[in-house]
Amino acid sequence: MNTYPNQFFDRLMQDYDSRLNHSGIEGERLATRLAKLAEIGLTDENGSSRMGFSKEERQAKELVKSWMKDAGLVVREDGAGNVFGRLDGKDGNAHVILSGSHVDSVPNGGHFDGPLGVLAAIEVAEAWKQANYQPNKSYEVVIFTDEEGSRFSGGFSGSAAMVGDVNQDEQLKLIDLHGHSFQEVIKADGLTVDGYFRAKRDMKEVAAFVEVHIEQGKQLEKRNLPVGVVTGIAGPCWLELTFLGEAGHAGNTPMNDRKDALIAASMFIHELERFPREVSPTAVATVGRLNVHPNGINVIPGKVTLSVDIRDIHKQTRDLLVEEVIKMAQEVAEHRNVKLEVAETIRIAPVPISLQMQGKVMKAVEDQEVEAFLLPSGAGHDAMVIGTHTPAAMLFVRSQNGISHNPKEWSSLNDCVMAAHVLKGIIEDLTQ
Amino acid sequence: MNTYPNQFFDRLMQDYDSRLNHSGIEGERLATRLAKLAEIGLTDENGSSRMGFSKEERQAKELVKSWMKDAGLVVREDGAGNVFGRLDGKDGNAHVILSGSHVDSVPNGGHFDGPLGVLAAIEVAEAWKQANYQPNKSYEVVIFTDEEGSRFSGGFSGSAAMVGDVNQDEQLKLIDLHGHSFQEVIKADGLTVDGYFRAKRDMKEVAAFVEVHIEQGKQLEKRNLPVGVVTGIAGPCWLELTFLGEAGHAGNTPMNDRKDALIAASMFIHELERFPREVSPTAVATVGRLNVHPNGINVIPGKVTLSVDIRDIHKQTRDLLVEEVIKMAQEVAEHRNVKLEVAETIRIAPVPISLQMQGKVMKAVEDQEVEAFLLPSGAGHDAMVIGTHTPAAMLFVRSQNGISHNPKEWSSLNDCVMAAHVLKGIIEDLTQ
Repeated sequence: MNTYPNQFFDRLMQDYDSRLNHSGIEGERLATRLAKLAEIGLTDENGSSRMGFSKEERQAKELVKSWMKDAGLVVREDGAGNVFGRLDGKDGNAHVILSGSHVDSVPNGGHFDGPLGVLAAIEVAEAWKQANYQPNKSYEVVIFTDEEGSRFSGGFSGSAAMVGDVNQDEQLKLIDLHGHSFQEVIKADGLTVDGYFRAKRDMKEVAAFVEVHIEQGKQLEKRNLPVGVVTGIAGPCWLELTFLGEAGHAGNTPMNDRKDALIAASMFIHELERFPREVSPTAVATVGRLNVHPNGINVIPGKVTLSVDIRDIHKQTRDLLVEEVIKMAQEVAEHRNVKLEVAETIRIAPVPISLQMQGKVMKAVEDQEVEAFLLPSGAGHDAMVIGTHTPAAMLFVRSQNGISHNPKEWSSLNDCVMAAHVLKGIIEDLTQ
Repeated sequence: MNTYPNQFFDRLMQDYDSRLNHSGIEGERLATRLAKLAEIGLTDENGSSRMGFSKEERQAKELVKSWMKDAGLVVREDGAGNVFGRLDGKDGNAHVILSGSHVDSVPNGGHFDGPLGVLAAIEVAEAWKQANYQPNKSYEVVIFTDEEGSRFSGGFSGSAAMVGDVNQDEQLKLIDLHGHSFQEVIKADGLTVDGYFRAKRDMKEVAAFVEVHIEQGKQLEKRNLPVGVVTGIAGPCWLELTFLGEAGHAGNTPMNDRKDALIAASMFIHELERFPREVSPTAVATVGRLNVHPNGINVIPGKVTLSVDIRDIHKQTRDLLVEEVIKMAQEVAEHRNVKLEVAETIRIAPVPISLQMQGKVMKAVEDQEVEAFLLPSGAGHDAMVIGTHTPAAMLFVRSQNGISHNPKEWSSLNDCVMAAHVLKGIIEDLTQ
């Protein structure tokens, strides 16, 4: 038997500062639960494999349901498999405040991405239970189904169903990586297609959503801060550019008589770097994938296909950047006398977080005597899906070396507990 | 049955200017023989597949032997399968003048690369036979075995054996693409390993070698010239450069906090273009192969491996260029704060063609009232192997669109016949 969950727990506790145990938040409980979840879908490399709609995700949900009940929450599950643990507020007519994340993972991922957001939200309920505190508004801890989307190359299956952002025809056409239809997959998880589409909730009853999540970057680590205030969730736009030159023999074609597609691509990549800062301090642009044809040592590249990932938290600047980048690529192609083909494969709207919600998170961070550092989220999260329907906020937790989607993913228990304290502050503010 | 050889013949004859039939050189004979060779190893795409040591190469050699005999040559074959068709000169003590090329091809290659050089050399003997002319020195038409090297990823198997540039241990270790040893392959062709190693000829008896070959580039086409005088055969140096940065999430890593290996590689590629002209007008440098890791759309490239093919016809400038390129790559890596690994995979000495030999070719070209245009050979040829042991010369023939190693390879019959006339002039000069 793999004893990793025990080691994982010991490592969490090893440098834990028990002075963080106060106001009803307990580090050991959080560590115990993170370690218990780590047992489910544990891989040979001590990573986590809990795909959306899998037995492992189901098992993790059932375990978390028991903790929700321990924390005094009333558990229900919707037709998309989203789990809600509810504490009724004093004001029966008031809107509900939602907090949580997901418990599925990418194949051989880490043990914090998702679970931390769910368990931190439960800590808030635990603290209240201990203090015998009842908020004014109702509070729900949520587990969204299949956030990562490793199964259907999609993601956000649960949160999208809840807000009703699902195209039924498209959803029914999905085939998972084992060749099973969406209908078959959801049935194996004890759900039905009809129930999935009926999971849409009246979002008018949800006043706000708050998600705690690991940063998956290094900005907090570099600034030596446990948590950070997310200013918005960047929406990616993906371009595929193809530079078409002319292949030729590397020996028999003089330098001044070439149409080298790779030189054109190189000029583009080099130029690209300075573009984001000209539109916005949070914008980024990346060429991550590049393929050369025919890719032979002694052949002048005739064709280069490359991806450009362009993101910002503001739609206007992101879209402007996309435009500027395409224009620049066209200029490079013209200058180098090669052809250019541009295709847009994805354009997802960024979700800015309102200044009011950012302000609430900042105040809760400062209340813990931590500097409120603002940073964008470059990756998508359930909060991105919810945020287009109801005010959303996110709190990032420092990630060691910025590593995520990997067994090495790590956040110290001190930082996780700090996030729970901050979340408690935010939720108490919102549920007033 | 594939009727392509007939179409090939018709296409050659279609725009043939029969005024080029003079001095014993005949276009129709040359076209007939090119078309007959095209029948052997003909592919579905009308290309040629005659790998070294294959049944097809053997069949082509036997056919050419019959034409050698028709041209009054005495045929012999050495232990490496090289075929020689000899016409004794008047002076029994004088050295021999060699001309020819190869009849093997790359998989699905063209019908001119190799055969044209052999058949043009036979045209010289045909012309002499018709004129009842005997040169002073002896003349040999040669077919070298396995020039292309598609079988063992090597090449020049025949010419290297003749000059003795073979490492016996290395040669015996070769395994072909079907998993057969060199010994098995050569035996299937009716040859023996012992015979192969004994094929070494006393190169003192060979006074010169002249090879007619298609250009495999576009320089002659651009200048509207049928043939060109080769100034040297560029020796390639191949480098493999690895830029090592740091992978990271394209959304969660700010632009100013990246170690993007692809941006470094792009700067290198862009800079590289201006380097060759600074050392020599004939130098070239090409990045033909480039691979990005992990090559994911939303991942900052952590590692880029690329090839650099550096060539010149002069060893000194070629080697200087290699040095300068490595230095520049190091500067780029330092500037971009990434690591660089450099490996040299090939360094073959260039073979300059002596001014005396170039002069003879120039004169023969001008005698045909064609401008003598000088150009380097970027690709390797048997003349490169021979040229380190005895004076060698090369005459290039215009290639349509510069295409070679492809069924579309094409040189007009007018240009091929012009090459035969020029070759006759060169050989008559050398055999005096």
